[in-house]
Amino acid sequence: MDELTKVTHIDNVKLSEDKRSVVILDQTQLPNRTVYLTLGSAEDIYDAIFELKVRGAPAIGICAAYGIYCLAAAAKTDDFEKFYMQFKKDKEYLDSSRPTAVNLSWALNRMEGVVLANKEKPVSEIISLLKTEACEIQAEDIRMCRAISEYGLSLIKDGDGILTHCNAGPLATSRYGTALGPLFLGKERGMEFKVFADETRPLLQGARLTSYELAKGGLDVTLICDNMASLVMKNGWVQACFVGCDRIAANGDAANKIGTSGVAILAKYYGIPFYVLGPTSTIDMDCATGEDIRIELRDENEIKEKFYSEPMALKEVKCYNPAFDVTDHSLIAGIVTEYGICRAPFNESFQEIFRKKRENRL
Amino acid sequence: MDELTKVTHIDNVKLSEDKRSVVILDQTQLPNRTVYLTLGSAEDIYDAIFELKVRGAPAIGICAAYGIYCLAAAAKTDDFEKFYMQFKKDKEYLDSSRPTAVNLSWALNRMEGVVLANKEKPVSEIISLLKTEACEIQAEDIRMCRAISEYGLSLIKDGDGILTHCNAGPLATSRYGTALGPLFLGKERGMEFKVFADETRPLLQGARLTSYELAKGGLDVTLICDNMASLVMKNGWVQACFVGCDRIAANGDAANKIGTSGVAILAKYYGIPFYVLGPTSTIDMDCATGEDIRIELRDENEIKEKFYSEPMALKEVKCYNPAFDVTDHSLIAGIVTEYGICRAPFNESFQEIFRKKRENRL
Repeated sequence: MDELTKVTHIDNVKLSEDKRSVVILDQTQLPNRTVYLTLGSAEDIYDAIFELKVRGAPAIGICAAYGIYCLAAAAKTDDFEKFYMQFKKDKEYLDSSRPTAVNLSWALNRMEGVVLANKEKPVSEIISLLKTEACEIQAEDIRMCRAISEYGLSLIKDGDGILTHCNAGPLATSRYGTALGPLFLGKERGMEFKVFADETRPLLQGARLTSYELAKGGLDVTLICDNMASLVMKNGWVQACFVGCDRIAANGDAANKIGTSGVAILAKYYGIPFYVLGPTSTIDMDCATGEDIRIELRDENEIKEKFYSEPMALKEVKCYNPAFDVTDHSLIAGIVTEYGICRAPFNESFQEIFRKKRENRL
Repeated sequence: MDELTKVTHIDNVKLSEDKRSVVILDQTQLPNRTVYLTLGSAEDIYDAIFELKVRGAPAIGICAAYGIYCLAAAAKTDDFEKFYMQFKKDKEYLDSSRPTAVNLSWALNRMEGVVLANKEKPVSEIISLLKTEACEIQAEDIRMCRAISEYGLSLIKDGDGILTHCNAGPLATSRYGTALGPLFLGKERGMEFKVFADETRPLLQGARLTSYELAKGGLDVTLICDNMASLVMKNGWVQACFVGCDRIAANGDAANKIGTSGVAILAKYYGIPFYVLGPTSTIDMDCATGEDIRIELRDENEIKEKFYSEPMALKEVKCYNPAFDVTDHSLIAGIVTEYGICRAPFNESFQEIFRKKRENRL
């Protein structure tokens, strides 16, 4: 058995049997129901990403790659120009489903690159190459998570308490995950960690997903409300914070789920190292600082009504509901990528990592 | 019309018409239903406090005072020793309903003081004096909130953004409230504030109560999840943080709703003054530092299930659910009491305030 498959494997994104649709595990229905959805149309795929049925930057990228392949495969033309026009349209539509996650654009651009690099070939062959590319994006993600997990594991020791925010585990990626990867990998090697999972309001990914996959994986997990992190740190229970990321600017500023910057500030105050774990595809060297990262604002219903049996605030009360915040690079002890651990000054460290990436394949 | 009644008056704790029971507004049913409960037995009163139907340190004190009066009034004896034995039993029982709020013990001890100071008088007269004392505790609370509001208002200016955590408004006290008092008072005087209310997980007092009473009072309130406070502060929208308190140690360490210490750490990081507002009865000079404050741990159901239409985490996932945390005195710009604003070094400042309290009545 491949070592990669030791971790309880959850197929969160894959192609359907007939290879015409994307099948995803509907993460909005966890932890109470395990429901797989078959996404056949552009609208299905857009909605699944927009409604967070598939979420986590790498998983979104994989879903978009399989999705654009399926839409391309349904093309009823042999004419490249017509094919490409429809491809562009579908790509732009899917790309608009979430504004902050860089992996969405990254995966779609990579798929478009296949189309453009093979424009002289028959459309049917291009479609076949798109499928290969989408599968390779997923396979790379698995290798990438494994490498991040190894580097992350080098930062902690057996028995440590680790606090995490939101969800950056296997459900958000393909296997292992990023922020949770070192914990799953350490568990495989007989290590024990005490994991504290922020519930992560308003959408409760920490409660619904992180505590779910950690518990299912046999890890020692304690669920807390976001505002309890300060006391948990003060109690001396946390030796490191591990979080994922949606986009990292060239200076190391990191956008991640709303509340991440608060965790980083608390960690700094209590003298606990705060690590961001994510693939190099998340580093956007064209984005100078966090100031350039657009923050998605979501519906106030997520704060007042969603998940509740009745509204928790009056209709006339307004809400501010940003989906992400940016953690200043000065608060980050290290950014753990599949090619190594970047440290301040991050811009230089990133250059080094990208050099390594150009020279080595995972 | 008395100026005190200008603020929309909510009778959250009062004696029933026949003076035999305590009538409370059930705060667990807000904001969707306005339900008044009549508490006749010791168990009714204990449960109301334990289940947070009445909450907020001053309101708990008032409820306990009226409660112990009603229980005493039901005494079927003229014998002082028998009367006092039952009084003690009821008092200890009520006192055990919430471990952290000092006002509960404070009010009950004050009521016991009336009994002991009048042990030579007939039981019926003692009962009558208990009623007077309970009414006076409430009247003092109103004057106290008004004074805190005046001092608090001197710390902010028209147009300021104020962030608050949990609920320390009129619902938690008698009128005005403590942390929200300056905002209501300023509003009466034509000032406008932009208030940010942390929803305050797990029991959502910020959503259910603070945003409710601010909106009803015509204030500009924006509800946020607790983990959004960092971004709201970073955006430059907050000029001061105002929070209430449940118990303050002699060195200025302040116990308040879980998450308060996190807000204070964020405020420090962003250079925003963080103020604690509360009556001198909350200052416990017998408690040297926050280390001596016992933190109530509550049921994990509050995190995983309460309020939700279905569970948000697996049954086997454990939770840590502390009701309070302690904010270190070094993070507090000022503690606003009914006798003035205390500043570091707090122990000296408290001595000064208590001197003033001995010399002046409100």
